Amino acid sequence: MSEGDVNRLVAMLAKLPGLGPRSAERATLALIKQRESLMYPLLKAIGDVFETIKTCSICFNIDTTDPCKLCQDSRRDQTTLCVVEDVADLWALERAAIFSGVYHILGGTLSALDGIGPEDLNLSLLLKRASNGQVKEVILATNATVEGQTTAHYIVDKLRGGQVSISGLAHGVPVGGELNYLDDGTLGAALKARRPF
Amino acid sequence: MSEGDVNRLVAMLAKLPGLGPRSAERATLALIKQRESLMYPLLKAIGDVFETIKTCSICFNIDTTDPCKLCQDSRRDQTTLCVVEDVADLWALERAAIFSGVYHILGGTLSALDGIGPEDLNLSLLLKRASNGQVKEVILATNATVEGQTTAHYIVDKLRGGQVSISGLAHGVPVGGELNYLDDGTLGAALKARRPF
Repeated sequence: MSEGDVNRLVAMLAKLPGLGPRSAERATLALIKQRESLMYPLLKAIGDVFETIKTCSICFNIDTTDPCKLCQDSRRDQTTLCVVEDVADLWALERAAIFSGVYHILGGTLSALDGIGPEDLNLSLLLKRASNGQVKEVILATNATVEGQTTAHYIVDKLRGGQVSISGLAHGVPVGGELNYLDDGTLGAALKARRPF
Repeated sequence: MSEGDVNRLVAMLAKLPGLGPRSAERATLALIKQRESLMYPLLKAIGDVFETIKTCSICFNIDTTDPCKLCQDSRRDQTTLCVVEDVADLWALERAAIFSGVYHILGGTLSALDGIGPEDLNLSLLLKRASNGQVKEVILATNATVEGQTTAHYIVDKLRGGQVSISGLAHGVPVGGELNYLDDGTLGAALKARRPF
């Protein structure tokens, strides 16, 4: 490549998760070839988010307002608090449109290996929210990984003895899942938690 | 997702080749989390390219100047013209740093199926360049696909009878390639074009 500006764009795009050096080149060429229909709208979209994005001071969601629209929404059930690791998990739950309570985003999981302790997560505000008298149930929707479950257990320890009930997501066979492709752990959990028809 | 601006950024990123809806979400979150170190530089890089990018009126390369830096570079051999399909091919050859001549970018290949005829490619200027008296050799470096080779043969037909010599890239075993993973066509071409040690 001969050119500084184009090079720099390729290098920046290559830093996005999911793009490597070659796919960043392809993306750059696609942007240049569709200057008006792709490059300009993307420039505008990034610029708008760059200008307006805020972190919600209540739940740590990202939005253009603080508090975020979910926290401000009076139709949402403020008594049920769903604790997730990341904004992407909130998005997944919102996409499924099966939860009408409010969220709390931890911003990660406890991890001794990576040196991430309780003080690195948005925990103190969670404990404060959970004991504000309004919240009745805390749903721990961290990932079903070792780190996610360790974090969930840590939070259970901290919340225990308070007024809120604490629950976690059910383990079992994914909807549409085939048994012979499932791991032993999931199968075991699904069998153990079997329900009467 | 709850938010218009963020949604729009996800949708725009998902239009880039190599990114789907989920990876665009991941990329969006990475941008938001690294607002200063990733989002701002990317915004700047796209903005700079958007403002400055031009298509070279000689070789159809993209650059911030017209003619492009390769065409302007007096150290490059103006007598050898390498014809490629796309800017990405030029980049690949420049990365390899094995060619010191100048380029001509076709902007695609002939394709009856997609309705792409000679008039849709940058062919007329190529024929003019090839007969300007300065060019001595035209190297047809189109892809080794049916479309690429059809296009190469079309150009050979047009250039034949002129003063320039015409060549194509050699077929053979890729460097580092293992014979038992190669297709029959490549193996046959490599055997046919065998060279004495």
